[in-house]
Amino acid sequence: MTTSYNLKMLRVNLTEKSIKTEILDEALAKKFIGGRGLGTKILYDEGVAKVDALSPANKLVFINGPLTGCNVPTGGRYMVVTKSPLTGMIASSNSGGVWGARLKYAGYDAVIVEGKADAPVYLSIHDEKVELLPAGDLWGKESTNVEEILKEKHGKEASVLNIGPAGEQMFELACIMNEADRAAGRSGVGAVMGSKLLKAIVCSSTRTVIEPFDKEKLREVVTESLRKIRENGVTGQGLPTYGTAVLVNIVNNIGSFPTRNWQESYFADADKTSGETLKEKYLVKQGYCHRCPIGCGRVINMNGKTVGGPEYEPIWAYGANCGVEDLEAINEANYWCNELGLDAIGAPTTIAAAMELYQKGYLKEEDCDGVPLVWGSAKAIVEWTKHMGYGDNKLGRLMASGSYRLCDHYGVPEFSMSVKKQEMPAYDARGIQGIGITYATSNRGGCHVRGYMISPEVLGLPEPLNRLATEGKATWTKIFQDLTAVIDSSGMCLFTSFALGAPDYAALLNAATGTNYDVEGVLKVGERIYNIERLFNKEAGMVAGDDTLPKRILEEPIPSGPSKGEISKLNITLPQYYEVRGWVDAFPTEATLKRLDLL
Amino acid sequence: MTTSYNLKMLRVNLTEKSIKTEILDEALAKKFIGGRGLGTKILYDEGVAKVDALSPANKLVFINGPLTGCNVPTGGRYMVVTKSPLTGMIASSNSGGVWGARLKYAGYDAVIVEGKADAPVYLSIHDEKVELLPAGDLWGKESTNVEEILKEKHGKEASVLNIGPAGEQMFELACIMNEADRAAGRSGVGAVMGSKLLKAIVCSSTRTVIEPFDKEKLREVVTESLRKIRENGVTGQGLPTYGTAVLVNIVNNIGSFPTRNWQESYFADADKTSGETLKEKYLVKQGYCHRCPIGCGRVINMNGKTVGGPEYEPIWAYGANCGVEDLEAINEANYWCNELGLDAIGAPTTIAAAMELYQKGYLKEEDCDGVPLVWGSAKAIVEWTKHMGYGDNKLGRLMASGSYRLCDHYGVPEFSMSVKKQEMPAYDARGIQGIGITYATSNRGGCHVRGYMISPEVLGLPEPLNRLATEGKATWTKIFQDLTAVIDSSGMCLFTSFALGAPDYAALLNAATGTNYDVEGVLKVGERIYNIERLFNKEAGMVAGDDTLPKRILEEPIPSGPSKGEISKLNITLPQYYEVRGWVDAFPTEATLKRLDLL
Repeated sequence: MTTSYNLKMLRVNLTEKSIKTEILDEALAKKFIGGRGLGTKILYDEGVAKVDALSPANKLVFINGPLTGCNVPTGGRYMVVTKSPLTGMIASSNSGGVWGARLKYAGYDAVIVEGKADAPVYLSIHDEKVELLPAGDLWGKESTNVEEILKEKHGKEASVLNIGPAGEQMFELACIMNEADRAAGRSGVGAVMGSKLLKAIVCSSTRTVIEPFDKEKLREVVTESLRKIRENGVTGQGLPTYGTAVLVNIVNNIGSFPTRNWQESYFADADKTSGETLKEKYLVKQGYCHRCPIGCGRVINMNGKTVGGPEYEPIWAYGANCGVEDLEAINEANYWCNELGLDAIGAPTTIAAAMELYQKGYLKEEDCDGVPLVWGSAKAIVEWTKHMGYGDNKLGRLMASGSYRLCDHYGVPEFSMSVKKQEMPAYDARGIQGIGITYATSNRGGCHVRGYMISPEVLGLPEPLNRLATEGKATWTKIFQDLTAVIDSSGMCLFTSFALGAPDYAALLNAATGTNYDVEGVLKVGERIYNIERLFNKEAGMVAGDDTLPKRILEEPIPSGPSKGEISKLNITLPQYYEVRGWVDAFPTEATLKRLDLL
Repeated sequence: MTTSYNLKMLRVNLTEKSIKTEILDEALAKKFIGGRGLGTKILYDEGVAKVDALSPANKLVFINGPLTGCNVPTGGRYMVVTKSPLTGMIASSNSGGVWGARLKYAGYDAVIVEGKADAPVYLSIHDEKVELLPAGDLWGKESTNVEEILKEKHGKEASVLNIGPAGEQMFELACIMNEADRAAGRSGVGAVMGSKLLKAIVCSSTRTVIEPFDKEKLREVVTESLRKIRENGVTGQGLPTYGTAVLVNIVNNIGSFPTRNWQESYFADADKTSGETLKEKYLVKQGYCHRCPIGCGRVINMNGKTVGGPEYEPIWAYGANCGVEDLEAINEANYWCNELGLDAIGAPTTIAAAMELYQKGYLKEEDCDGVPLVWGSAKAIVEWTKHMGYGDNKLGRLMASGSYRLCDHYGVPEFSMSVKKQEMPAYDARGIQGIGITYATSNRGGCHVRGYMISPEVLGLPEPLNRLATEGKATWTKIFQDLTAVIDSSGMCLFTSFALGAPDYAALLNAATGTNYDVEGVLKVGERIYNIERLFNKEAGMVAGDDTLPKRILEEPIPSGPSKGEISKLNITLPQYYEVRGWVDAFPTEATLKRLDLL
């Protein structure tokens, strides 16, 4: 029977230099959908939770969802699932571009990488021809250069995924790039690749289509989905026109735009860094991932060079959060994150933390290699990004281990605006109560894309919620988290969820794979995924107290601006959340695990 | 006019991929002799003191002395001079084997390496043919393997210098190996090579002799020197028969053999790890460096495999200092230091510090990856050496940054038995007052081979001094330090100084190079070298308080054994030392610099 799964995986053992094809059990795949869910299940079952993240015993799973490569809107995403060196817990970082679709077309749902090479290698996949090739001449090189060299060798149609110098040096803020400017950005997944001496995976295929379970039905559901995406204000207008940075003014205007490492939450110069300004001054054209009808990507002009532009997150993190209003410098700093393979949230938020250390005298001028870490310094954000990525000075290397390790080094871990050692993104949880629950309970640490409560609390989608209220937020957060787990596991982009809901995703999955999900059923799979991640974290050593927010968010009210006086009420919402999840002390009860078929 | 200098240097810029030959100014060379002295002068003049040690702006100088490659006893040594990532000050690490002589025969006194490669490379030198070649396939590989591969390619006569996985990962305890088991061991020089993506330097030559200034005279002086070396008890008998580990029982018997991270200073089981026991149980044959008449090297049987054996220092550091009496495990741990490119003093002393952290509850069992860091554990010394070199778990990576950073991480830097962040070696400065001055004032941090006061204070050479007295020790230390600087700069081995004195070295240098040194003159050059190193350190940020000893040595008397109750009297000797040096607050006065022709 036809299904959009390949039901085939590659297992590459770098120590043994072996490459094997394995059958993916269809029932298991459907139980966790794919991507984030299935990847976590595989690693959990193989005992990875307990190993050191940078040891050869850790494994990397590059994994598609069943909708990756299908003729569905945004159906081109893959995930990197591994144990994180940043958090010591589960990492699952999502990326677009075309790499995931190419892997799917080549015939594989996933690549599991184990062990450690005895010299730098890259993996080349072309249909059944899969090889480990020497990558010594690529080691040390930046993303664009690696992309060029490997395309020269393997053809223009080949898609390249790689790490930069940051990953090679196993920095906790290292990401994995594909198509040179698309990133599996968070949780230090690039450092795991580096620890294995795996520089790149290049992928091409002769096939370019995936046959779904029910082609007619899928076409019908896709037509309806595309209509919803086009007609939705966010996916049909806001994101295509201004990119994700359309949020800059929106979030700043409600005074929940963290400024100068969250010491404030309103940035007077925000508009100078907005999506509107970016479009006006630097935009060349929109950027599209595989099969994307939205095109939130920005292709910009940087000093005469056409490069990938920054998203909302790095614009905020380099901008308001470092007190910088110079968009040209932000564009350049963001470019260096891509070239060097640094998390474009983690790197700038760590610079912001360093600036607070400097402001308060923990970091001295003599530590700063000629570029003082002062608020608002355009030079500092560019130069320190390069120092972090190249690791070419002491402070840069320390910063590349993330804000938590940096601030802890100076005895003030509380200056790190992070959860589970991963930096929080661009929404102040003091002014938006629901997103605080997401940050605190995200299995991969501080993160907005594990339950994007901004959608109802700020954008009013699917319905407006009072951002300052606590009531009902625990339940909303759980549903958003579970639905997000479904989307991440399917191979589609989270941004479709502004326009689509659980019934749409269920219908798409059913038509593609032959499942029979109703809304309740598909959300239950999402819940299962959220819980298997939590089981992974428990085995990795997570404790109940890890579900929390930085002291500043819990104890220091926003000092000024439209959300002045607000503070996170996590003390109220967290117990409610555990109750709706069926968790006690941060972990699922036996009854919950039984209900989710995880026992 | 003939001279034993080549008067030619290579300058290799890895960023620009350029290789140039430069003239070495003869007057400048003679002013600093070569090796350690000239290398420091070059780096000082080129402004290296102020740069970050692991940035492309740091430089590595591989440099011979004028006696390297000459027909003189032990004339085969070279030095690696650079800014140290461990101490942040001058590094100059000395190594034997044959690599230095090969470089000399190929036609160069030094190789200066600058910049950073854009992918791993190695440098190949064969006479005038000098090339940068890709080393991607060598990256990640251990010393023996690198040696084999490069000899396969460049011929059996080629000599290979390389870094292991520790250097690639820029660990502060990384060393540089040559001939697979000879090491430029200390101060993290291997990390600097790693930061430049330079994996190895392979060197061969068609020439195999160096013409000295006065061949007849040199032959005459060498004959006399060889006689003295043969007739001396240490160089003629002790070292050849038992290797450097002949010292184990000698130093333990005076109760100055640091035990369990210097908490005690007498190890009841020391004899089980002595040079005598090593000879009886494991020795296959003596090991000789180029033109060495002593042969202190140990070639041993390790589980049926013939490998380089441990010297006195690692035997002590892995043995008494970790409370381990299992010589077989010490042999194996030492082997892994060589294979992975770790400082065989720094690595085991850091394990000892970790064991004290474990003993006192700072390190927990769950931090230890299944191998608890308990005193006396044979398994721990082997496994943690591997973890440090491979960097395959979190604690291993932290430990590979040295005991200071390790202990500081846990808030107890005082557990690090180090000076200027470099670990002290195998002689307790509480029971031997002079060596404490050497440790405290060594320009490269805790070190015994920068003024080996053990010679008069313990071995009675050239004359016996009371080890517990302070009087006269400052003057003796200064003379030993200055003479050592001469020997290190000449290309000969420090061990010859048990038998030879300043008149011998002056005569050897005069015959080889055409200088006219008398004893006073040659010692003045040594003093100049010591002072230029100090100027380098000053520019690198050293402050007066850095000339000190760990609190334990200054405040906790030895608790038991033959030196019970003794403590370092550095408070008395250090001011005396500064006075004889002509220094104020740790740095040379203008008058001193003028006298030494350094202004």
